[in-house]
Amino acid sequence: ELMRILILGGDGYLGWPTAMHFSNHGHDVAIADNMVKRHWEEQMGVSPLFEIKNIDERISSWKNITKNNIKLYKGDLASSNRFTYKIIKEFNPEAVVHYAEQPSAPFSMIDRERCLGTTVNNINSTINLIFAIQKHNPNIHIIKLGTMGEYGTPNIDIEEGWIDINHNGRSDKMLYPKKPGSFYHCSKVADSVYLEFVCRSWGLKVTDLNQGVVYGIDTKETLLDNSLATSFHYDSIFGTVLNRFMTSAVMEKPLLIYGNGSQTRGFLNIHDTIKCIELSILNPPEKGEFRVFNQFTEQYSIAELAKLVVNASKSIGIDSKILNIDNPRVEQEDHYYNAKHSNLESLGLQPILLKDKILITMLKKIKNNAKSISSKLLEPNVRWNQK
Amino acid sequence: ELMRILILGGDGYLGWPTAMHFSNHGHDVAIADNMVKRHWEEQMGVSPLFEIKNIDERISSWKNITKNNIKLYKGDLASSNRFTYKIIKEFNPEAVVHYAEQPSAPFSMIDRERCLGTTVNNINSTINLIFAIQKHNPNIHIIKLGTMGEYGTPNIDIEEGWIDINHNGRSDKMLYPKKPGSFYHCSKVADSVYLEFVCRSWGLKVTDLNQGVVYGIDTKETLLDNSLATSFHYDSIFGTVLNRFMTSAVMEKPLLIYGNGSQTRGFLNIHDTIKCIELSILNPPEKGEFRVFNQFTEQYSIAELAKLVVNASKSIGIDSKILNIDNPRVEQEDHYYNAKHSNLESLGLQPILLKDKILITMLKKIKNNAKSISSKLLEPNVRWNQK
Repeated sequence: ELMRILILGGDGYLGWPTAMHFSNHGHDVAIADNMVKRHWEEQMGVSPLFEIKNIDERISSWKNITKNNIKLYKGDLASSNRFTYKIIKEFNPEAVVHYAEQPSAPFSMIDRERCLGTTVNNINSTINLIFAIQKHNPNIHIIKLGTMGEYGTPNIDIEEGWIDINHNGRSDKMLYPKKPGSFYHCSKVADSVYLEFVCRSWGLKVTDLNQGVVYGIDTKETLLDNSLATSFHYDSIFGTVLNRFMTSAVMEKPLLIYGNGSQTRGFLNIHDTIKCIELSILNPPEKGEFRVFNQFTEQYSIAELAKLVVNASKSIGIDSKILNIDNPRVEQEDHYYNAKHSNLESLGLQPILLKDKILITMLKKIKNNAKSISSKLLEPNVRWNQK
Repeated sequence: ELMRILILGGDGYLGWPTAMHFSNHGHDVAIADNMVKRHWEEQMGVSPLFEIKNIDERISSWKNITKNNIKLYKGDLASSNRFTYKIIKEFNPEAVVHYAEQPSAPFSMIDRERCLGTTVNNINSTINLIFAIQKHNPNIHIIKLGTMGEYGTPNIDIEEGWIDINHNGRSDKMLYPKKPGSFYHCSKVADSVYLEFVCRSWGLKVTDLNQGVVYGIDTKETLLDNSLATSFHYDSIFGTVLNRFMTSAVMEKPLLIYGNGSQTRGFLNIHDTIKCIELSILNPPEKGEFRVFNQFTEQYSIAELAKLVVNASKSIGIDSKILNIDNPRVEQEDHYYNAKHSNLESLGLQPILLKDKILITMLKKIKNNAKSISSKLLEPNVRWNQK
């Protein structure tokens, strides 16, 4: 079944490969983006490891290579309701994938301006989106990217969004309590609060995907041509931990573990991100349903992850080391962590697990671009508690 | 112990009597307000039943009557961090009572503009406040007004902010799951998310007061002089349910019950609001503690409440009637409701319960001002689901 799919934040690390994937499979795809992420990168003095064309060039390159059109809407979903309403009305998608959010926890913790910027960008884009959908077509399925970091590290199993609570002899199915780890995570929790409310009150359809930490450089589509690359970050602001560790290894810099490294998180391959989005779209929720999936495939502690990178590096002749540093974040160490993630597998996800072969492919590709890497950017420069 | 107490939203229904109370008890009190609530009232075409002087006049009247100064900061906490930082630095309060929020559920449900306005005003004022406090004095105790409506109507007992959850053989003390009933309530839930995070990460001190529905016209201080009155609303936007019912009775208009009236809520007298704030300030939480109290004194269903008003009215010769109308809100009827509220009583609260005498005093005062009442404003004009 071919659909109209709108990707909000389609210029991003995950948005762009997601757009290409659906376009490649014959869906009618549109992207909305204001390119503000590139502006934030400029502010931070960081850039993606591989050269990234601008969005117009990427879309025309995609057209040249595949003959497929991707429609582009340039504008700001958070500040312009007219822009948001116009896209929803004109493109009238069956599904909207909402990636249009400031994606970095450290960025949100820099100062008041970045906390507020993250909050306003993330919540307001969500509010404009729900009103546009309520007005023009309440059947549109919203696929919202959240994060596992919203849950924090509770001492009980983490369920997928909802939990049956028995209390004083009665029971109810409740939203799983959240304990976000940064202002970025707070803004994501707030998004979910608003989205659950409009499912309940307006009968909208939402899939809330609490995603783990994504790693990876390429997808089937980015490999078609260098001009289709997506933005791989290795810096301490926008780079996810495995991507940073591999880059550190290549540069023969120590893999910096914040604290003792016992912190455990869920991880997934960028291929699986796209697969999960696809499974969500092909299996929409009921009208009025606020559906939550935990979108990751395996758990590792940060220390285990570092060891995997050290071992894979060794097999290709890189001698990398681990260094534990004072944790710049406020987060629990030595905690219980058991997060459920069976819903997407029930829909057919066959996880790509983290194997040496995957790490080695990534390490080699990073090594080929080593001359573009600024090792200084690997070091954390934002502290959670600024006292 | 005399303290410096800052009242954010000190021009409001609860803010103004709170400010006078502490000033009357010898504390050094400052008010911050941008008077935007009066602007929203203009937009809605509603006004308080009793004439309300502007804030400068009220403060100078207070000075004339009691010889006490209340310092006034006029400005917008949500849009101006400079204003917020300046007050916190200059006045350096021991406690900040944060009432500076758009307070109406129906207002937030009118349209996108009001949803966004409520969200931005409420969350941004909270964010500016926490950064100002973190910078200038992290020991300042924040007393944040939330609402019982954040919890919704779960099928289990409502605890005070935190709940011990046993799950799959393990247990944790978790934040009580919220199910807000409007965008206004969503914004309040988001506030709490940010505040709990800064307690955990920055060691701030917060008391989050989930307040029930407040009723009442006067406090000890408003009775000193007409010029010290606080804004009593009977309209369907800003008027709370008991205040609306009493006004309907006086006007011999039916008491409008939304739906079957089985909806149960917590209520409290305006005197007890002030007493609860005082108990919270005098008994501050520990550094890093996110403390939650459920601030109400008794539960009634809306139908029970209407009957109380009908009976009290009858005793002073008013023949009032009840009318059940189609519920303009999306909310559960015939639900379980048992909300705990022992924390404030443990600190010494002696509740003023809803008795005929209280209702009759209020009915008479409203009746004396009947000529100012526009009965049309008693009817609900905002629907939750605008389809």
